[in-house]
Amino acid sequence: MAEEAVGIDVGGTKTLAVRMRPDGTITQRVRVPTPRTGPAVLLTLLTRLTDSLRTPDTRAVGVALPGLVETTTGVLRHAPGFPCDDLPVRTLLEEAAGVPVHVDNDARAAAWAEYRTGAGRGHRDILVITAGTGWGCGAVLDGQLLKGSQGFAGEVGHLHVDTEGPTCYCGRQGCAEVSASGSAISHHGKAAGYPDGEAVTRAARDGDTRALAVLHTVGTALGHGAAALVDLLDPAVVIVGGGGADADDLLLAPARTAMHTALTASRRRPGIPPLVTATLGNDAGATGIALLALDRAAACR
Amino acid sequence: MAEEAVGIDVGGTKTLAVRMRPDGTITQRVRVPTPRTGPAVLLTLLTRLTDSLRTPDTRAVGVALPGLVETTTGVLRHAPGFPCDDLPVRTLLEEAAGVPVHVDNDARAAAWAEYRTGAGRGHRDILVITAGTGWGCGAVLDGQLLKGSQGFAGEVGHLHVDTEGPTCYCGRQGCAEVSASGSAISHHGKAAGYPDGEAVTRAARDGDTRALAVLHTVGTALGHGAAALVDLLDPAVVIVGGGGADADDLLLAPARTAMHTALTASRRRPGIPPLVTATLGNDAGATGIALLALDRAAACR
Repeated sequence: MAEEAVGIDVGGTKTLAVRMRPDGTITQRVRVPTPRTGPAVLLTLLTRLTDSLRTPDTRAVGVALPGLVETTTGVLRHAPGFPCDDLPVRTLLEEAAGVPVHVDNDARAAAWAEYRTGAGRGHRDILVITAGTGWGCGAVLDGQLLKGSQGFAGEVGHLHVDTEGPTCYCGRQGCAEVSASGSAISHHGKAAGYPDGEAVTRAARDGDTRALAVLHTVGTALGHGAAALVDLLDPAVVIVGGGGADADDLLLAPARTAMHTALTASRRRPGIPPLVTATLGNDAGATGIALLALDRAAACR
Repeated sequence: MAEEAVGIDVGGTKTLAVRMRPDGTITQRVRVPTPRTGPAVLLTLLTRLTDSLRTPDTRAVGVALPGLVETTTGVLRHAPGFPCDDLPVRTLLEEAAGVPVHVDNDARAAAWAEYRTGAGRGHRDILVITAGTGWGCGAVLDGQLLKGSQGFAGEVGHLHVDTEGPTCYCGRQGCAEVSASGSAISHHGKAAGYPDGEAVTRAARDGDTRALAVLHTVGTALGHGAAALVDLLDPAVVIVGGGGADADDLLLAPARTAMHTALTASRRRPGIPPLVTATLGNDAGATGIALLALDRAAACR
C-alpha cells in the first residue's frame, strides 16, 4: 500500500502545502500567500489545500503553525500577528476534511525534517534555528523531539542577543526575533539603503561592503543566540534555516565566530558543534509536519 | 539485600558526602570545605570521603561536579575557579576506591533528585535552577534527564538576564551567574552595606527595606532568566535551589512577577508553570548523584 501524507506549513507570509511519501519525497507542491485576516479564512484555505492534494492513499494531514501550538489538543493558542487565538485547528480541519490531522509548531516540524532527512541525519541531538520572519527553534534530544509539558517548547524569539539591537514589538531591545532573523536583515538593510533583505544578500554576494556589514551584524547576533542555546542543550550540530539562511556562509561565518567567542568555556570543550545551513530549505516545515502526521497516524492505528 | 550508594556533591565552597538508600533516605552526612588547590588534593578528598562512608552494601559512588562534565567518560573538562581541567575523575576514583563510580554535573544531579524525591515529583517535565555560587540548570524532559550530545547541557550561567547587572568574569554584563545567583545577593548586598548574602536574607526577613530591595533586584533577574528557559523548554514546574534559594519567597515573589511579565505571550498560555523553592535544599546534589549512580550500576549489571 502506497501511504502518503499532506503537509501544510503556514508561514508568516507564504503557505506551502505538499504531498509526500513516507521517505520524505515530495510529489506535489502548492504555494499561496498566507491570509492574516481571521480564523475562517485560514481554515477555508487549509481545507482547500487538503482537498486539492489528497489522494485515496492519503493517511494523514499535518499542519505546521507559528507560535504557541498545543500539540496534545491541536489548538493554536497564539501566534504573533495572527488573529487566531485559541483556534482548535485539528478538530475543525478533521471535521471538514475527514482525515486524521496532526498540528504542531513550524520550527519543531522543521527540526524533525532536518533530523530525519536533512542536515541533522546521523545525529541524536540537533538544534534547528529558523531565522525567517521571526526567530524560533526546534530541537531533537537523544532522538526525541523537544515538545515541553504543553507543547510550547522552542519559543526563543525573545532571547536577548544584541545589546545594540532594534527594539522588539515586545518592548525590549535586542531580542533574537528582531536582531537575528530574516526580518533583521531587512531592518538593517533598509537603514543602509537597500529595498529589502533579498537585495542585501544579492549585493553581499557581489562583494558589496555595506551589505556584508549588515550580514555581519545580524550574523553576530545569530551566533550569540546560538551560543545560549548550545550552552543549554549541547547539540551535536546547529542547523540554521528560514529565509535568512539564504545568505548561507555570508551570514553563518560571522555567526560561527560569535558563537565560538560567546560559548561557555569554548576553549575547554573537546568539540564545538558545527553551525551549518539547513538542507531542506523552504520544504522543511511541510516535510516535517507530514512526517510527524504519518508517525502519529501509525501510532494511533 | 540492602543496597546503598555514596553521593558526593563538590560545591563551589563546600563538599557534601552522603550515604543513601535507594529510596533517597540519607543515613549519614559528612560536610567539608572544598579544596580549590589542585587535582591531587581533590582526588584525595574524594577517595577519603568514599572510604569513610562506604559499607559492604555500597553498590555505587556518585560524584557531582560543577562545570563541563563529560558524562560518557566521567572526565571533568572545566569548572570555573577549579584548577582541574580535563581530569578523569571516574577512572582515577574507581582505581583508588575499587567501586563503580558515576560522575555528572551538579545542577543535573540536583534536578534528578528533585524529580525523583523532591519538588518535581509527579511531573514529567521539570526545570531546576541552582542559584548558588554560580547559576546553573538541570532539566528533566518527558521523564529523561537532559544531558546533551557530550553531557554539557545546562550551562546557562552566561544567559543575559539584567541589562543593568554587574560585569561578569567572562567580560560581559548582566550574566545570570553574577546577576541572579547567590553571589549576586552578596554582590548587591555588599554595595548596600551588608557583610554577606546571608545577612541580606536575615535583614529582609525582619522587613528591612534595603535588604528587600536587594532581593527584588536579584529576584527580578532570576525571573528573567527563568522566563528564557521556560520559553525554550516549557516545563510543568520551575524549581529554584542553591544557596540563594534560602531567601525563599522574598526572592521568588519578585522572580515570579518578572517571569510572568517576560514570558512570551504569557496572557495567551493556558497555564504558567509555578516557580517554587527546591525541597531537598543542600542535599539535592548528593542525593541526585547517588540515585544516578545506583541507576547506572543497575543498568550495567
